[in-house]
Amino acid sequence: MQAEIISIGTELLLGRIVNSNAKYIAAKLADIGIEVRYQTTIGDNPAHIQEALKIASQRNDLIIMSGGLGPTLDDMTKPAVAEFLKTNLILDDQQLDRIKQKFVEQNRQFVETNIRQAQYLAGGQKLLNHHGLALGDFYQNEAGTDVVLLPGPPSEMEPMMDELVPILIDSYHLKHQLISTVMKFYGISESQLMSELDDLVSESSRVSIASYGKGNEIWLRLTIFDDGQDDAQQIIDQVQQTIAQRFPSYYFSDNVQESLAAIVVELLKSKHKTITAAESLTAGMFQSTIASVPGASQIFTGGFVTYSNQVKEQLLGIPAEIINQNGVVSAETAIYMADNSSKIMHSNIGVSFTGVAGPDSLEGNPAGTVWLGLAGFGETITKKIQFATTESRKSIREKSVMSALQMIWLQLK
Amino acid sequence: MQAEIISIGTELLLGRIVNSNAKYIAAKLADIGIEVRYQTTIGDNPAHIQEALKIASQRNDLIIMSGGLGPTLDDMTKPAVAEFLKTNLILDDQQLDRIKQKFVEQNRQFVETNIRQAQYLAGGQKLLNHHGLALGDFYQNEAGTDVVLLPGPPSEMEPMMDELVPILIDSYHLKHQLISTVMKFYGISESQLMSELDDLVSESSRVSIASYGKGNEIWLRLTIFDDGQDDAQQIIDQVQQTIAQRFPSYYFSDNVQESLAAIVVELLKSKHKTITAAESLTAGMFQSTIASVPGASQIFTGGFVTYSNQVKEQLLGIPAEIINQNGVVSAETAIYMADNSSKIMHSNIGVSFTGVAGPDSLEGNPAGTVWLGLAGFGETITKKIQFATTESRKSIREKSVMSALQMIWLQLK
Repeated sequence: MQAEIISIGTELLLGRIVNSNAKYIAAKLADIGIEVRYQTTIGDNPAHIQEALKIASQRNDLIIMSGGLGPTLDDMTKPAVAEFLKTNLILDDQQLDRIKQKFVEQNRQFVETNIRQAQYLAGGQKLLNHHGLALGDFYQNEAGTDVVLLPGPPSEMEPMMDELVPILIDSYHLKHQLISTVMKFYGISESQLMSELDDLVSESSRVSIASYGKGNEIWLRLTIFDDGQDDAQQIIDQVQQTIAQRFPSYYFSDNVQESLAAIVVELLKSKHKTITAAESLTAGMFQSTIASVPGASQIFTGGFVTYSNQVKEQLLGIPAEIINQNGVVSAETAIYMADNSSKIMHSNIGVSFTGVAGPDSLEGNPAGTVWLGLAGFGETITKKIQFATTESRKSIREKSVMSALQMIWLQLK
Repeated sequence: MQAEIISIGTELLLGRIVNSNAKYIAAKLADIGIEVRYQTTIGDNPAHIQEALKIASQRNDLIIMSGGLGPTLDDMTKPAVAEFLKTNLILDDQQLDRIKQKFVEQNRQFVETNIRQAQYLAGGQKLLNHHGLALGDFYQNEAGTDVVLLPGPPSEMEPMMDELVPILIDSYHLKHQLISTVMKFYGISESQLMSELDDLVSESSRVSIASYGKGNEIWLRLTIFDDGQDDAQQIIDQVQQTIAQRFPSYYFSDNVQESLAAIVVELLKSKHKTITAAESLTAGMFQSTIASVPGASQIFTGGFVTYSNQVKEQLLGIPAEIINQNGVVSAETAIYMADNSSKIMHSNIGVSFTGVAGPDSLEGNPAGTVWLGLAGFGETITKKIQFATTESRKSIREKSVMSALQMIWLQLK
């Protein structure tokens, strides 16, 4: 079974944005054994859309298009495809109601062109859009190549593609599948991780192991093609287990959706422990990350952003001498911040962040110098991290939050 | 002048990597007025390379290919292109010496297949590779479409493309360039923005106006092709000014790098005003956003994360009756939070966030109900926002931060 991916968008042709949709769709198709031999990108132009469809339908069983389903006048994919397939567009009343309802909820006036988003190809199967307004479409073409229409924004396209996968498996009776699993790591470099997996990469040729950076995390993807000959799931599980045992401090999840913060919040809940923080460097980013997890209020009631030295004294009662004698970026200040925040908030655990986000240095400490404090597990723990001076302000702050989560996770688990 | 970009690589077709080369090449071509109407991705397969060349040469003046120039057996671009163009490959002795020299330097044994990297198309102009071993090529085809060969690894391709740009300008006598500008908006939907620009989209056909969502912002890109006939820069400036005047509350910057937070921090600095916050819903995200701007310490010393009702009383001194009588998600609570935080922190401005991030409702308020408070501009201002119940927890919190920044910005400017 062969498929072509057609991406539609002037922004792609102008090189304004990278085509992450083609990558996402291609990976999902590879997973279920559909071969992609061509990817084509064109603009919002009906003639070009139809020309691309003509070429693609001559060399493929399936065409997956993304983009151009929106409400504006330059969104032309649906009518162009309908004309090519010699079918009509049908207005889905239910979807139109949903769209109108959205406008009401957001107190905005309905704009007539939004009707286009509620249309789908007559004879096709509409695909619901849970993160946007435009319907997608799966058109099984008895006379030729099947066509799928997906929206352009990745936040809408990706979940719709995820829902399409089982529909494709079902429609095409796909039996042999790629089984894959993800392993998420924090605190180890990609090259170190891979070098410690050298033996597995060569030995177990059935399981392919690929690494990539995902934000501040390193993800491994283990993949095996299930050809029905043996228990592929068991083989991949075994490799996963071997890797997990090698990196107990770095490997934290095999669930794509699950963040390290969510794991920490769940552990805190199950152990009935509360947490607070005093944040200088990160200025609220840690607490905001904790509160990003639904139900965080069970373990978190609030905390402090103490950016200046004077506020560290005022809100946390840290003696001025401590900061003067040791410097604000020091183990001693981190200890006081963690201890005092947990005492004031009556929390079991207190975390603190003090450091130099840059670009300038502070008290002779270069940008990237960070002290973390962690109260609540016996004697208060500190950890110094020296990020590279070339690391960005954003990255230093985000990695500090991740490092603190990792410290807490290692203590709790 | 029209060009097609052909990317070659199995990794692209499998969705293992994103096609950043197509974006880079497209942007460079757009800059010098070469229009890209098609981008095609294929695998390392001679038949597919030749098929793609055939299609592309029928519809373009120039084809830029990247990938498949390496030393391994699956790198097939050069011989496939040579066959298509009915020309030969010539071995460049100087390049071969360079390659062999590299192997000596790295203490590695020369591998015979590396000879391929020193080949170029007879009749073509070789392009030097300063970051790798494979030669590129610019083949001007008197009988048809010109072809450029670039290596696949971005670290090699990008500098070679940079060097190619002046060669293309010279060869094609390109004088006219694309001028473009970006306009950034917050607080208005894409469809509403575009519908209020309908007249400009049709009237001033010289300036093309494209909209797209960028995170929680809406960006417009205005583009004009400078054909030397008139003052294109002046025309685009005029359209930009017209749009800016239509949306004084939503349009905040024409600088891609500049965030709304950075604008607010700069305004605070220039007006010598300090800011603090009491955050419930957002739990530190606002303060963290302010502190993401270098130099924020001049206008921000710290603040509060008051997640639970009890902590709102403890840290901010909000009377329990206020919360009990009005509810925690209310104008009254927002006012007390903003007022008291600015008083305690001796800040000119105090911002507060209280609301329901979801997924569950709270005190009868559905997820997405948000009250913002803003003290420091005369009587304390409040703003209620009702996000759609389908909006994610993450999005509700992020948009609340953006909305508060917008409120402050409108007061300051």
